[in-house]
Amino acid sequence: MSLREFFRPGSVAIIGASRSPGKLGYVLLKNLLESGYRGPIYPINPNAEEILGIKCYPSVLDVDGEVELAVLAIPAGLVPAVAEECGRKGVKALIVISAGFRESGREGYALERRLIEIGSNYGMRILGPNCLGLIDTWTPINLTFASGMPKRGEIGFISQSGALGTAILDWMIKHGIGFSSFISLGNKADLDEVDFIEAMGEDESVKAILLYIESIERGERFIEVSRKVSRRKPIVALKGGTSTAGARAAGSHTGALVGNFTSYKAAFRKAGIILSDSLEDLFNYAISFTWQPIPKGEKVAIVTNAGGPGIIATDLCEKLGIELAELDHETMNRLARSLPSAASIVNPIDILGDARADRYRIAIDCALEDPNVDALLVILSPQAMTEVGATAEALVEAHRRRGDKPIMAVFMGGGLVEEASRYLKENRIPCFEFPEDGVKALSTLIEYSRFLRRMDHPIRRLEDVDPSSVRETLDGVRRYGRINLLPQEAFRILEAYGIRTPKSDVATSADEAVMYAERLGYPVALKIVSPDIMHKTDIGGVALNLGSEEEVRYAFEDIMAKASKLMPQARLTGVMVQKMVPKGREMIVGMTRDRQFGPLIMFGLGGIYVNFLRDVSFGLAPLTYEEATRMIEETRASTLLKGIRGEQPSDIEALKDVILRVSQLALDFPEILEMDINPVIVYEDGKGCISLDVKITLGEVERG
Amino acid sequence: MSLREFFRPGSVAIIGASRSPGKLGYVLLKNLLESGYRGPIYPINPNAEEILGIKCYPSVLDVDGEVELAVLAIPAGLVPAVAEECGRKGVKALIVISAGFRESGREGYALERRLIEIGSNYGMRILGPNCLGLIDTWTPINLTFASGMPKRGEIGFISQSGALGTAILDWMIKHGIGFSSFISLGNKADLDEVDFIEAMGEDESVKAILLYIESIERGERFIEVSRKVSRRKPIVALKGGTSTAGARAAGSHTGALVGNFTSYKAAFRKAGIILSDSLEDLFNYAISFTWQPIPKGEKVAIVTNAGGPGIIATDLCEKLGIELAELDHETMNRLARSLPSAASIVNPIDILGDARADRYRIAIDCALEDPNVDALLVILSPQAMTEVGATAEALVEAHRRRGDKPIMAVFMGGGLVEEASRYLKENRIPCFEFPEDGVKALSTLIEYSRFLRRMDHPIRRLEDVDPSSVRETLDGVRRYGRINLLPQEAFRILEAYGIRTPKSDVATSADEAVMYAERLGYPVALKIVSPDIMHKTDIGGVALNLGSEEEVRYAFEDIMAKASKLMPQARLTGVMVQKMVPKGREMIVGMTRDRQFGPLIMFGLGGIYVNFLRDVSFGLAPLTYEEATRMIEETRASTLLKGIRGEQPSDIEALKDVILRVSQLALDFPEILEMDINPVIVYEDGKGCISLDVKITLGEVERG
Repeated sequence: MSLREFFRPGSVAIIGASRSPGKLGYVLLKNLLESGYRGPIYPINPNAEEILGIKCYPSVLDVDGEVELAVLAIPAGLVPAVAEECGRKGVKALIVISAGFRESGREGYALERRLIEIGSNYGMRILGPNCLGLIDTWTPINLTFASGMPKRGEIGFISQSGALGTAILDWMIKHGIGFSSFISLGNKADLDEVDFIEAMGEDESVKAILLYIESIERGERFIEVSRKVSRRKPIVALKGGTSTAGARAAGSHTGALVGNFTSYKAAFRKAGIILSDSLEDLFNYAISFTWQPIPKGEKVAIVTNAGGPGIIATDLCEKLGIELAELDHETMNRLARSLPSAASIVNPIDILGDARADRYRIAIDCALEDPNVDALLVILSPQAMTEVGATAEALVEAHRRRGDKPIMAVFMGGGLVEEASRYLKENRIPCFEFPEDGVKALSTLIEYSRFLRRMDHPIRRLEDVDPSSVRETLDGVRRYGRINLLPQEAFRILEAYGIRTPKSDVATSADEAVMYAERLGYPVALKIVSPDIMHKTDIGGVALNLGSEEEVRYAFEDIMAKASKLMPQARLTGVMVQKMVPKGREMIVGMTRDRQFGPLIMFGLGGIYVNFLRDVSFGLAPLTYEEATRMIEETRASTLLKGIRGEQPSDIEALKDVILRVSQLALDFPEILEMDINPVIVYEDGKGCISLDVKITLGEVERG
Repeated sequence: MSLREFFRPGSVAIIGASRSPGKLGYVLLKNLLESGYRGPIYPINPNAEEILGIKCYPSVLDVDGEVELAVLAIPAGLVPAVAEECGRKGVKALIVISAGFRESGREGYALERRLIEIGSNYGMRILGPNCLGLIDTWTPINLTFASGMPKRGEIGFISQSGALGTAILDWMIKHGIGFSSFISLGNKADLDEVDFIEAMGEDESVKAILLYIESIERGERFIEVSRKVSRRKPIVALKGGTSTAGARAAGSHTGALVGNFTSYKAAFRKAGIILSDSLEDLFNYAISFTWQPIPKGEKVAIVTNAGGPGIIATDLCEKLGIELAELDHETMNRLARSLPSAASIVNPIDILGDARADRYRIAIDCALEDPNVDALLVILSPQAMTEVGATAEALVEAHRRRGDKPIMAVFMGGGLVEEASRYLKENRIPCFEFPEDGVKALSTLIEYSRFLRRMDHPIRRLEDVDPSSVRETLDGVRRYGRINLLPQEAFRILEAYGIRTPKSDVATSADEAVMYAERLGYPVALKIVSPDIMHKTDIGGVALNLGSEEEVRYAFEDIMAKASKLMPQARLTGVMVQKMVPKGREMIVGMTRDRQFGPLIMFGLGGIYVNFLRDVSFGLAPLTYEEATRMIEETRASTLLKGIRGEQPSDIEALKDVILRVSQLALDFPEILEMDINPVIVYEDGKGCISLDVKITLGEVERG
């Protein structure tokens, strides 16, 4: 979808155009006229002959020529009727600026529903309502009521907040930063961020996409589209509304550990979208992406004439996990020959406070020519001998010569560096006031380059699974109208997907329990089975390490007695007799289905520590092998798994396998809402793992 | 110490004054002349009659009048001789700009030693060498070679990096932000940050102290002085050099868990110093502190004409732990009466995109008058109806009326808000471009107000301790030339300080072990005792839960055999027989002595999880009861201690008691270098805790 009719319409009607300079309908028309738009413009206003020197029409139906796009700036109540007229006229694209729709209550909601219906009847696409409009600097066209037209550039900006848009447009104009296009999404009645990301993905004039987003409705499609687009050009996003607590009451560990923002973070990661922590960073990143190349590797060199700022930059590099390049021997020799002896010829390269431009030139050249260096940060503090302007020129020349390695400048200070900073920006070298901003920008370019490499990892379908057995089990559960699976049902599902579980049977009498125990072999564990008991240990429903008939018999009676006493309402199915398994490390693998983004898989430290230590990581299905690896490595428990204090490492490959199998199970059976395997006991490397306990909950909607 | 002779000297000699505009000696003299300094100025240069219209002297000894302060800008090699002359002349204060001292190698180091000696012989205080100099805008005096003189203001800035200083001076000038004084510390041969913090503490023209610091040598004094000063005025610091890995090889868990930055963070906290994450924040905070009052409480209100930016601010508030004020009923009624119905009258107060200044005026007034609101953030995005200038005026008026509650402005955009932003700053209202900066500034004011409240907590000496018994034990250890205490010695020390340990005895034969076991009562544990074995479990040196004579006898022989086999070099003292204690939660309390800041106490989750989960917190001794409380609450384990899933809460008070006793022990016995109590077993509330295992290491230097 190119949405050409929005970005490059053949003709535009401004419905609600006004003669009073204070009104939106006036500002809209004026902005359009001043934007340099070359197609026909039709102001629509039944009470005016002409506005701003242009002939006015009583209604869009009165226009002689074709109208491809119409902007509506009229009271919300009038919008449906006018939209209907637009439809009849054959308008292809509607931008509804007017507020008073879904955001304003029940009546507005009904209006919005009608608007959507009309759009769909006539095949008209709609941006808004309750939005600021749209700008494209290359057409050029300004269909917003924001003041001022930004410079032509390569950034496409999609904003769910109109007010943020006006502020940012003004900010960009002041800083001389160019836009390709700007879209205010408004209520997203029809078109949403997914449509515009797709459109900007195809638009050659957009080199980087900026996104301010508060909610995403079409989560899976969002990931699919963004994942495609972000392979070709970076998407940088700021998510507003990370603070509201998650709404769904959680029945599983996994559910309880998922914050409101967890799924968005996982989704952005999956989609290859760079997440920004702040509004300022969002723009710094966009500028860096449009002006500088993506680094081939991850190693950074720093050249500085100031020790302190060099240290500050180095500190942040370490904190963000960016490696400082180890300079080549030849580079160090060259630096040693050219720099004063007090200079530092190891990275960060400190060329000392009295460095003039020539010293910068040499150090920059050495760093850029070094095969170990992938990106460069140049810091300047204006000291007595500093040649600010000539140093900026040296940077620009270096960038022309070695355009394949990104360069960021940090020119600290005020008046002394103002001109040089402007010169650098004119020549497409991002220039920051503080070292931290330069480091963060470089780090973001590196993050994107990592994503590009990660994109090549294949998603492999496992073949040794048995979906039909799972289907049978789930159908059985449904027939009973249950949503919580009994342990033996859950175990059967895991086994069908190649996840090892301990041998077990459910006994309904002490005799039966003893029979099973003898068959399985001692020692065994007994666990209460009831669709109504979630936390078995809390009510004494578990007995471990039973080594004889007597112990099993006693434990059975004891468990049943306690359960009846403590939870008299609970239906007791029986007691599971399970072969005891050897001790190992207790981990957790879980899944919870996110409403927007689908199955969110969790891995972490299991057992009683899960809930309060929160040593967990997340990923969205379908997971690649590398994503499963990353999930394990992100936890602190991974240190433990690799073996500490001379212990054998755990079977990490087996854990990855469980994670991947859970991912596939979740994809294959959308009715599985939540799932906890806790603990997954993992043994020494090569000895696999075993899922000791599992809870599976089905979606209520699927209960049918 | 006021250091008046540096900030307000009666007369100044510039030694090395030069006629060539390119030279430091020229710039220094010129800056001094242009600064408006009113005392006599003596340029010293044997080869000049006069510089910049002022009579020149061949040496400081040739000056007729008194010279109170001398600035040296001459080659390092000449500095000692000239300093000697200054001493003889009766100079009180030396600023040594020259480089080529300790920072440049062995020869420079010797020069610096000589300089220090001369200073001390003549009672001359020295700033530098290798520094940028000093500025005081109130004297006024500029003794630096940085270009431009900052505006008069209330910020005192102490920088360990000269290059950072020049950049920041220039930045401050551009942004119209005033300084009271600026000091470049250089090599800190004599005067250091402690001296200047003390001096600025007494200087009424300084309202907030800014610190850029890379190293602190006099750690305990630094805390003592800063703690006093920060009660009267805020100190904000940025620490450079947080990334280098800690240098000391660690023999304890506590030591291993201490990062390079841990002790600095604990020290800054103890000293009441606000730690900044970035250079930009450092200045934003300083401005906020000098322009706005400290809030009485911690509740923030937000007024905004833009939903998105309001959401971004709210998100960050939650992330930083700032509570949004719940507005008073009366306030909400007033807002409901005055604002359009679509506006949000709960906090954040959204006065909608078409808000003019009058609506801002009402909302600001409502928020400031609300007794539940302690601080205010006002966000503006320049939209079609926005009255930017009039809104700024409303803010300034509100601040005049209610000067007791801090106000921060976020005026987003570029050209449209530029003038209003300047106007706000002229009227001492911090105005930021992005919502995040406003929130961080408010959060910092709140953090300082918390510190002020915390300062009132008393440090209580525990009386029920027995130092003489500890002294005796330590003297005994020393006599044997050991640095690692044996378990029974360490237990004796804990008991002497009122920390409960299990009953135990050390046996050297199986018979003895059995005898002790019978005396203590079964079940018992056996643990190898050797000054050479640090990790007992690793070599099978521990046997638990021994219930009979046979088991004890077997375990004794087994432990001794394994130890001799696996660690044939180890001296085996015997085997400790310990009464088994009931199970409980395993925590750790530890101490490591920081070279700069003294005893750093650690608390966290104990057992095998310590090292990889790193769920620990730190505090510097002496600890208050409230600090011990905070240390526990900072760990995730505190959730566990409070009782999860219906479990009884643990005896948190008993843990605090152990922490406080360890703090006092560490203070009373400086030769204790490191200490781990791991695990401290804590029981249900009211049932106390017991220290099951303890390691104490003495400082090598104390070995005697």
